[in-house]
Amino acid sequence: MTTDPNSTEVRVSDADRVVIFDTTLRDGEQCPGATMTYEEKLEVAECLDQMGVDIIEAGFPIASDGDFEAVSAIAGRVKNATVAGLARAVFADIDRAGDAVKHAKRGRIHTFVSTSPIHLAHQMRKTEAEVLEIITATVTRARNLVEDVEWSAMDATRTGIDYLCQCVDAAIKAGATTINLPDTVGYATPEEYAAMFRMVRERVPSSDKVRFSTHCHNDLGLAVANSLAALDGGARQIECTINGIGERAGNAALEEIVMAIKTRADRLPYATGIDATMLSRASRLVSAVTNFPVQYNKAIVGRNAFAHESGIHQDGILKYQQTYEIMTPESVGVGKSSLVMGKHSGRNAFRSKLKELGYELGENAFEDAFVRFKSLADRKKHVYDEDIEALVDEGIAHMHDRMKVVSLTVIAGNMGPQSATLTLDIDGVQHTVQSAGNGPVDSIFNAIKLLVPHEAKLDLYQVHAVTEGTDAQAEVSVRLEEGGRVVTGRGADTDTMVASARAYVSALNKLLVKRQKTARVQQAL
Amino acid sequence: MTTDPNSTEVRVSDADRVVIFDTTLRDGEQCPGATMTYEEKLEVAECLDQMGVDIIEAGFPIASDGDFEAVSAIAGRVKNATVAGLARAVFADIDRAGDAVKHAKRGRIHTFVSTSPIHLAHQMRKTEAEVLEIITATVTRARNLVEDVEWSAMDATRTGIDYLCQCVDAAIKAGATTINLPDTVGYATPEEYAAMFRMVRERVPSSDKVRFSTHCHNDLGLAVANSLAALDGGARQIECTINGIGERAGNAALEEIVMAIKTRADRLPYATGIDATMLSRASRLVSAVTNFPVQYNKAIVGRNAFAHESGIHQDGILKYQQTYEIMTPESVGVGKSSLVMGKHSGRNAFRSKLKELGYELGENAFEDAFVRFKSLADRKKHVYDEDIEALVDEGIAHMHDRMKVVSLTVIAGNMGPQSATLTLDIDGVQHTVQSAGNGPVDSIFNAIKLLVPHEAKLDLYQVHAVTEGTDAQAEVSVRLEEGGRVVTGRGADTDTMVASARAYVSALNKLLVKRQKTARVQQAL
Repeated sequence: MTTDPNSTEVRVSDADRVVIFDTTLRDGEQCPGATMTYEEKLEVAECLDQMGVDIIEAGFPIASDGDFEAVSAIAGRVKNATVAGLARAVFADIDRAGDAVKHAKRGRIHTFVSTSPIHLAHQMRKTEAEVLEIITATVTRARNLVEDVEWSAMDATRTGIDYLCQCVDAAIKAGATTINLPDTVGYATPEEYAAMFRMVRERVPSSDKVRFSTHCHNDLGLAVANSLAALDGGARQIECTINGIGERAGNAALEEIVMAIKTRADRLPYATGIDATMLSRASRLVSAVTNFPVQYNKAIVGRNAFAHESGIHQDGILKYQQTYEIMTPESVGVGKSSLVMGKHSGRNAFRSKLKELGYELGENAFEDAFVRFKSLADRKKHVYDEDIEALVDEGIAHMHDRMKVVSLTVIAGNMGPQSATLTLDIDGVQHTVQSAGNGPVDSIFNAIKLLVPHEAKLDLYQVHAVTEGTDAQAEVSVRLEEGGRVVTGRGADTDTMVASARAYVSALNKLLVKRQKTARVQQAL
Repeated sequence: MTTDPNSTEVRVSDADRVVIFDTTLRDGEQCPGATMTYEEKLEVAECLDQMGVDIIEAGFPIASDGDFEAVSAIAGRVKNATVAGLARAVFADIDRAGDAVKHAKRGRIHTFVSTSPIHLAHQMRKTEAEVLEIITATVTRARNLVEDVEWSAMDATRTGIDYLCQCVDAAIKAGATTINLPDTVGYATPEEYAAMFRMVRERVPSSDKVRFSTHCHNDLGLAVANSLAALDGGARQIECTINGIGERAGNAALEEIVMAIKTRADRLPYATGIDATMLSRASRLVSAVTNFPVQYNKAIVGRNAFAHESGIHQDGILKYQQTYEIMTPESVGVGKSSLVMGKHSGRNAFRSKLKELGYELGENAFEDAFVRFKSLADRKKHVYDEDIEALVDEGIAHMHDRMKVVSLTVIAGNMGPQSATLTLDIDGVQHTVQSAGNGPVDSIFNAIKLLVPHEAKLDLYQVHAVTEGTDAQAEVSVRLEEGGRVVTGRGADTDTMVASARAYVSALNKLLVKRQKTARVQQAL
């Protein structure tokens, strides 16, 4: 291997190839507020596949029909990556996961069971011997359905090493090809996490026949360090997510893992198959579909991650810009927002631009996007890549909505009562209402409530500009909560009030889908 | 020491006391967009002091009169912490820093010089011998002014170990009491960072007489792991920031450092003096004054950091909530948003509430806040702690503004042209104008531009709700950029449009201050 830290080419043997397992669509999507629609999941999967992710964990097929369909569709469409479906240590789960991934070029069943004493005693209420039998039975079942079976020892970092080795041994004997030892509660430190892998691999006879995997949570801020330390202990698969989203404090961030390995090839002599120049786009896409903002100073993909130059210029104090760069913004796909299109751009130019941005739309979706583009170009001086992305993303997200905003007029300010006059299209019929409220947004939301009565609580209301300048499109996120169900809707428009109405209506549309899904899960379990 | 990971009491010897050095007000404030006003800096410093931070780096006194005044004022007010001022290896910087901290109970001068070959060759254009002489001269100068001198080897992690040891030796001989070895470019891995401390401490004769310090940047996502690894190498001071803000990808996050040490007392047998129950409030305060959003899945302080329970309930799949908790939300001060006050609450109740929230206002500021509270309580059903915090913070931030929003009426929606009628008070005189625009926000901003012509570019426009529910106050952030200067203003109101006008005007007010500051820095350097 090369030792030049700025080199993008790292020569490593096959033994040092680290497999990137992305679980944005499973562990990421599972966290409160990050629910994605079917279309959004397909879009993310396509981006991950293009980027060179080795395994895409596409969902939890038994959880709902929606999850099953998303995993199946992704399995059918993905071109290079292996597609994995998650399954508890239950035959019904495993069979359903097997069904979901059967049309994939390479399908994987990922089945897990808890191994720690605290989980065995309090939730499973099983003995160690019983769990060993479950492992053998469930891994065998999975292996009869697919060649590629991953088994995870849930809460591995709080499991005694002797018992953990027995479990790993049973899983390998039953046919598991990847063994994942997760730090489920985000509790490990790098040294002990590496030591666990080293011990298990030393003690379990056929360890060299399988691939060992990490899955780290970031509760103490150590997920990336733990994942990388485990490579030294012999792990060669890292489970991670775009932007580090996931349960609680999230998972190890894919972009940090990839760039640490790339930048520190001298200390981390491994290679991944990731095209790092796509990291920035993947980050923006996942942030947009989940409505999870990326912290400005987030490593690699935050807006300030490469802002040292302006920062230093700005304060006019430290003038050492060149020696601060350990990687270039271009290496992770960060570019300048480029002026692309105006009101005179035609269908062909728009089609090429969409292709360049990575979209492949059907004819109807394309026409819809083009009409919205022309209307935007009439109102907005400069149309940027980000504007087009927002416009297309919004189109994709709302294609199957039952309710749509038709028209809106709002009066706001501190000189009198605020009010909104709103017309919604509900299942093809238009309804109009006028409502007052405490502020213009409250007025709009009250109007929606009059037309579509519901009990959901507003959990989050956020507006941000899609591009720079005062005539930027506003993108509004609305998060609603109803009986433990959390959904996020978004809407984009140059008028913040119109975007707010769209976002709220979009969240309501998702809530309808979610209600059906929850009903189904309760039936299934 | 105890090995119970849930214990909040850790018994360690004095040798295992880790000193927390917070640089939110210096490295944090220095990053693009995070500029804080004088009042905001004092508020943050007070919070850090209450929380038990050992050293507060309050700013860079030579940079501007504003920085000097903020450091001096913090030095005078802070009750327990040491107050540090930063200085380059230049006598003028050191003298100015000495002046700024001279009224502190415990004042520290923190002086730094680059030691890496790349910095010496390209920026300093000095030989190793010359830099050694500079270290001796500048540390001696600082030590003649104060007892407590910290010396930093900028870019230490890319400095050859032999020369690094010579530099450290020179600094100790000249009287430095703390030696900081920063990972300036965020390049190190935990093992090599720990090894560097170990080697330096073994080789430099009087290492046991001084305290060694870490300062890690998070460019590869390893800042926290590196800081903790260095403890094993003998470091006993950690430089960090609230929410991990700072140049580029930021610094090690204080809250993650503190909670990792607390939670993993078995692997990290150290203690800090931090009251962890204040972490949540400190995070919210810093996020509010910088307008830097905290990622939902940010460890410890993100809104999802403890959201596993609802997350799991929500998807109805995994039901293992109790065994997922390695720390409780209460241990870091996360509580339920509590209903506190209504329109019948009087002055005394409001005064006690402010005290409980950690505010100490003068009579004028209190009266102003009370009037605003009553007006809010008239319009809003439930007034939460966060509402009161937003209201008081906004009052503090705008106290010295030259321009104020008097009245505003806005017409928005997709049925006709949007327009705004705005009255501003500028230096005591009221001006009114009406303007159209592309959306209501654009109309308001155009109206402001008509009244206060300027060339600044809108860099960021963001709205979020302060509390839950549709009648929540909206808090708007506006980031403006003018000739490399970046400022952020914010405004809160139940009417988003009014909050937007206030935020833009607040940013313009800050731009006036910043213009003066930049002029001064260019003069000084």
